[in-house]
Amino acid sequence: MQTFLNQLERVLGGSGLLTGEQVRGRASSWLDSSPNQALAIMRPESTEELSAALKVCNQHKVSVVAMGGLTGLVNGAIASTSEVGLSLERMNKIVELDPIQKTAVVEAGVALQVLHEAASVHDCHFAVDLGARGSATIGGMISTNAGGTEVLRFGMMREQVLGLEVVLADGRVMSSMRPLLKNNTGYDLKQLFIGAEGTLGIVTKAMVRLRPRPLTHCCALLAVESFEEVLQLLAFLQQRAGLSLGTFEVMWQSFYDHVLANNKAHKAPFAQSPAFTVIVECTGTNIEADQDSFEAMLGEAFEQGLCIDAVLASTLDQQGAIWAIRDDIETLMSALPNGIMFDVSLPIKHIDSYVEQLKQTLVGRWDEAQVITFGHVGDGNIHLAIALGKHLPAARDALEQYVYTPLEGLSGSISAEHGIGLDKKRYLPLNRSSEEIALMKQIKAVLDPNNILNPGKIF
Amino acid sequence: MQTFLNQLERVLGGSGLLTGEQVRGRASSWLDSSPNQALAIMRPESTEELSAALKVCNQHKVSVVAMGGLTGLVNGAIASTSEVGLSLERMNKIVELDPIQKTAVVEAGVALQVLHEAASVHDCHFAVDLGARGSATIGGMISTNAGGTEVLRFGMMREQVLGLEVVLADGRVMSSMRPLLKNNTGYDLKQLFIGAEGTLGIVTKAMVRLRPRPLTHCCALLAVESFEEVLQLLAFLQQRAGLSLGTFEVMWQSFYDHVLANNKAHKAPFAQSPAFTVIVECTGTNIEADQDSFEAMLGEAFEQGLCIDAVLASTLDQQGAIWAIRDDIETLMSALPNGIMFDVSLPIKHIDSYVEQLKQTLVGRWDEAQVITFGHVGDGNIHLAIALGKHLPAARDALEQYVYTPLEGLSGSISAEHGIGLDKKRYLPLNRSSEEIALMKQIKAVLDPNNILNPGKIF
Repeated sequence: MQTFLNQLERVLGGSGLLTGEQVRGRASSWLDSSPNQALAIMRPESTEELSAALKVCNQHKVSVVAMGGLTGLVNGAIASTSEVGLSLERMNKIVELDPIQKTAVVEAGVALQVLHEAASVHDCHFAVDLGARGSATIGGMISTNAGGTEVLRFGMMREQVLGLEVVLADGRVMSSMRPLLKNNTGYDLKQLFIGAEGTLGIVTKAMVRLRPRPLTHCCALLAVESFEEVLQLLAFLQQRAGLSLGTFEVMWQSFYDHVLANNKAHKAPFAQSPAFTVIVECTGTNIEADQDSFEAMLGEAFEQGLCIDAVLASTLDQQGAIWAIRDDIETLMSALPNGIMFDVSLPIKHIDSYVEQLKQTLVGRWDEAQVITFGHVGDGNIHLAIALGKHLPAARDALEQYVYTPLEGLSGSISAEHGIGLDKKRYLPLNRSSEEIALMKQIKAVLDPNNILNPGKIF
Repeated sequence: MQTFLNQLERVLGGSGLLTGEQVRGRASSWLDSSPNQALAIMRPESTEELSAALKVCNQHKVSVVAMGGLTGLVNGAIASTSEVGLSLERMNKIVELDPIQKTAVVEAGVALQVLHEAASVHDCHFAVDLGARGSATIGGMISTNAGGTEVLRFGMMREQVLGLEVVLADGRVMSSMRPLLKNNTGYDLKQLFIGAEGTLGIVTKAMVRLRPRPLTHCCALLAVESFEEVLQLLAFLQQRAGLSLGTFEVMWQSFYDHVLANNKAHKAPFAQSPAFTVIVECTGTNIEADQDSFEAMLGEAFEQGLCIDAVLASTLDQQGAIWAIRDDIETLMSALPNGIMFDVSLPIKHIDSYVEQLKQTLVGRWDEAQVITFGHVGDGNIHLAIALGKHLPAARDALEQYVYTPLEGLSGSISAEHGIGLDKKRYLPLNRSSEEIALMKQIKAVLDPNNILNPGKIF
């Protein structure tokens, strides 16, 4: 093993390889602050260094676990004591940003927020956003096909990626870095690496698509009495606002009450907590007219009985206060001892009955069960934070069965945007057929015959 | 061979297998009306029948060439006398259309126009459109990742596909038909089959995404004096119209003059033919205000000198007359004896110089050279119709070298939306590295070990 580490150090340089206390000083993940257990952590400075380092790992058949911003939620970037971690934190440059072509070339270690800021300077917009923007890296977000709050309009990370540079397990570099929206030249191989959670290759660089930066941004919080009306409101807004509708996020009463009760820094937007609180955002380009149209549209929704109250957020501060409630996952989880967060998707018409039945089942089995629901309802994606009092973590397996099993019959998914990692791999057969899983394994074997890239994750 | 055909007929039924004159009575493709040469044409009625038929073909190692609407332009669906054709024309049902979830389940043989009309009934919109809409099938469009005139806003076919049912070479059926925008559960295998030109599996059914149908549709034709101004106009419209900008199509003077001169049915929109004629379309949801905003925006473009003349198309008839010019590929090609159509993409800032240099080179070598240019400039995608007088078809190879070789240095693509087929496969190495092509072949070998699915196409 020492020979192996010496070879790695020769390739990566002294500051390119962390060992011992340098590794232990790092956390395992955002959810788990215990010391990182990896044998070592590689910090290459360039694609060439990574290529050389992966050749060494492949020769020695030592597994490599790519670590992005460590903000993942499914234990997809956990390395054991016999595995080497890989951080691209030194490959963190925005190599190029072309505001005419609306593209950027970004190294994998760039944090989402850094890309947002750079795009903004050129009146451009990178169309994926999520709460972990300060830490989540572009490479990690591509490897997990991250979602977030703009999927309704712009799609997930997959839709933003025009080209990739990837280092394969044996050190070969595969590049498709063309700044083109359209390129039908054979199989679109880059798609394989997007969402593969670091099991097929290491994303080192991406050519991503940018959009024109919107000139107006309207935001409101609506109080809605029933889920049926939530659905009607969504249909109404989609028809009325068309593509300017960017966000349709819903907080169930359980979420709203829990966060407001446990973090007094938030100011209650409504006198009484609504059954459903909806964040609606529209963006546009008409500085004179957009806010008026937005308010008129909400007025009409109110008249049609689709909402019973509304708070307009006209200033950035007011918008910030609304999102602070929605994004306060820290309060949500810290005030829910041993709580587990789930991420599922299903046809939107089934969301309410799924949540209600799940709640009944859990409360029927465990009196102390709490189900707190929120999420990207416009995308059919909800998050469930569930606590079972003293029964967790012991009852975790039983709980997971209750959450995941009904999704099969509803054409839902056990992972909308968080991926599979270690946490969900035993449930993968609920969503993917044996033929599909067999083909995934065949593709893995072609690209990584020694099975050194994040082995044991996904399947 | 007779045993093989008997087995096929047993599986497919009498009307499920065409042979002899029934095959010869069909054309080879849209471009080539000579009799189809296939050994037979399979017309399964169901996925099960196709599965059984492919098993027979795989056992006998007989190649299968999937034929959609035969509107492709790269000879990707040409079958030789020893190959069996496959038409899904009897699998042409829209199985389900859900206007709330905004999804449709469509059999592969459904024509694009049929899906458009069905979606429209439910106030929905299927966001890919192209001139061949009456014949092109959803299955063929998925297998070629079709583009068209709405890519700027909604992306290509790939972006519309939520799930696929695919029959593999050995008859196994692989399905991922979930109506979900978000589903991060392992490798997104369906991406492999999109754009694979029928070489990895046969698409039998798709779950596609629909959009809300826009309520307003504004269209204008603008006369622009230079390509520099075309680019400025595009940037201005993207900033001003944002996501409501759906179409930005450009006809070079060469195209405009040629089509108007050769088809007197068209009425000249401008007194003098402009250097560049741009079709701009915006869609929206504000019936009262959108046309006024559109006209105000164009007025401002005019004041800024970004265009020198404009024709507004307020009625459907007027819009139809504009598109009739742009879509008149029949006149374009029939008045250009032995002309060849090219489909390339490149960064938009290089388009003009690429076209000008190509024209100079060709005219320098062949006096009679004509280069007629038009296309989806908003996507960086242009089409070139090129004639060389008496020198074609003999000089085809030399011409292709002139068209394709400069693209490599410009990060362009030899095929933006038409695919590779037989026509471009020798040029694939200009766009894809040897590592990429090697990986494509490995994936092909995994999915189709006997190499029976459209062999010899792409690579």
